[in-house]
Amino acid sequence: VTFFRPRGEHLLLALDLIGTALFAAEGAATAIASHLDLLGILVIAFLTALGGGIIRDLLLGATPPNSIRDWRYAAVALASGVVTFLMHPSSVAMGSHWLVAMDAAGLSLFAVAGATKALRFEIHPLLATMMGGITGVGGGTLRDLLINQVPTVLRTDIYASAALLGAAVAVVLLRLGAKPIIADICGIAVCFTTRMLAVQHRWNLPVAG
Amino acid sequence: VTFFRPRGEHLLLALDLIGTALFAAEGAATAIASHLDLLGILVIAFLTALGGGIIRDLLLGATPPNSIRDWRYAAVALASGVVTFLMHPSSVAMGSHWLVAMDAAGLSLFAVAGATKALRFEIHPLLATMMGGITGVGGGTLRDLLINQVPTVLRTDIYASAALLGAAVAVVLLRLGAKPIIADICGIAVCFTTRMLAVQHRWNLPVAG
Amino acid sequence: VTFFRPRGEHLLLALDLIGTALFAAEGAATAIASHLDLLGILVIAFLTALGGGIIRDLLLGATPPNSIRDWRYAAVALASGVVTFLMHPSSVAMGSHWLVAMDAAGLSLFAVAGATKALRFEIHPLLATMMGGITGVGGGTLRDLLINQVPTVLRTDIYASAALLGAAVAVVLLRLGAKPIIADICGIAVCFTTRMLAVQHRWNLPVAG
Repeated sequence: VTFFRPRGEHLLLALDLIGTALFAAEGAATAIASHLDLLGILVIAFLTALGGGIIRDLLLGATPPNSIRDWRYAAVALASGVVTFLMHPSSVAMGSHWLVAMDAAGLSLFAVAGATKALRFEIHPLLATMMGGITGVGGGTLRDLLINQVPTVLRTDIYASAALLGAAVAVVLLRLGAKPIIADICGIAVCFTTRMLAVQHRWNLPVAG
Repeated sequence: VTFFRPRGEHLLLALDLIGTALFAAEGAATAIASHLDLLGILVIAFLTALGGGIIRDLLLGATPPNSIRDWRYAAVALASGVVTFLMHPSSVAMGSHWLVAMDAAGLSLFAVAGATKALRFEIHPLLATMMGGITGVGGGTLRDLLINQVPTVLRTDIYASAALLGAAVAVVLLRLGAKPIIADICGIAVCFTTRMLAVQHRWNLPVAG
Repeated sequence: VTFFRPRGEHLLLALDLIGTALFAAEGAATAIASHLDLLGILVIAFLTALGGGIIRDLLLGATPPNSIRDWRYAAVALASGVVTFLMHPSSVAMGSHWLVAMDAAGLSLFAVAGATKALRFEIHPLLATMMGGITGVGGGTLRDLLINQVPTVLRTDIYASAALLGAAVAVVLLRLGAKPIIADICGIAVCFTTRMLAVQHRWNLPVAG
């Protein structure tokens, strides 16, 4: 880990750590609702926040994964889990609207970051988009597997699809020659908006007849 | 990905893609039966078809895995999932005999391909055989984990054992100096026959008393 | 695999194989209790014993993992599974006190070995400690996922915490300049003692109010 990065990298790292904190808090809240003890809560917070990126890095062969190589990711995820544990139940009282928005923000950020990282590893655009989706939803899927639920991503409405759409927008713009920062912002905006609209209007994907 | 391969490679690729399509269709059918939406169906189709090979490639350190590096695998798996979705429920009416045979064919192909790939990475024959088994049953196991079932491979009769037997035959023949094409065909034939006979005669493995 | 190692390496290998045999026997006993057939029992024995180390090696990028590269690990795990299968139910009659002690021994050994291996890969001490925890509890977690239970590590008392504590002791001592053998013994002793005391006194971690 080097601490001297160009300005853009600092921005990306900051956004990445914010997404990590959001997802970790959400994972910890789920673990608390499942009556896990403090360590279980921290494990779930860590996996929810960093599991998607770890799966992506394993698939890309970028080992050790970012979040194992750089201690700040684990530190942020664990700190966020501890804070959620201490603030409970007042954190729950914060209201689900905020939770949904925070989750959508984390999803958008991780999906776009995952897709653009895959492109840098010269992965085909179709699969880079999928890697974006995996980065966005992988952590939540590991969390659901461990607490023995059918993963949300398989049960609910427009969630993974929003991640895939945002990733696709970023990938297409990059291939068309857009500046990285523009492609990132557009992808994040599309994913976030799609997800929030889907929640508000209860959009659903088709089911086999 | 290069599109210029020796003739034998073309055959292998074709067989691999056929196995991918078969397993993806089967995964999609399971997902439809679990009332997942279209995206969930595609996720399960992809994982059922390509999960075994991805686990194998991760264990071998052959990253990115074949099915992430070469877009045709994902394209075939997703197309097969879409076709199954659109044809439902007429695809179910096709009859379970065909499904069992298709599944046995996919299993045989993947088990032998997985074992021979592991040998090329200089893995010990005992473990190369196990890698064949993992390649054959890994995708179905991931599918069962995600839809929250005890994996079929742990519950049922001669399934993984057929994969291991076919893989072992191919490994032993290769070590005895047989031509790759001969070893492959023998391994595939043994796995397929064992699996089909086991289904027909309801063979079971011993259970602890 | 080389068979000529310095004396210390021989000791480590012996301890590692003993831990493998203990965990495999425990996994096989769980699989028998879940009414799996012989192959399912062997799969679970293998994963319980070697799953934690495989996850660690994948995360470190040390592929193929030790237990795939060196056939003796798989041989010991499978042999231990077969013996447990044949001895059942007399193995159960052995008493749970022995089982708990054997499990604590395996946990201690794997946690410390995992953490020190991560340090050798230049992983940050905080994350090396976590890698020790993963190595200790990863196999049991995979076993519980496959037989469709919420993993023990998330449900129970001081288990993963004992692994983390032992790993932390070894990591801190190594960073303070202690001899590897001393650091290992202290870490193993702390983990083992913590786990056994926790079982005896039914210690628990805090749960969110």
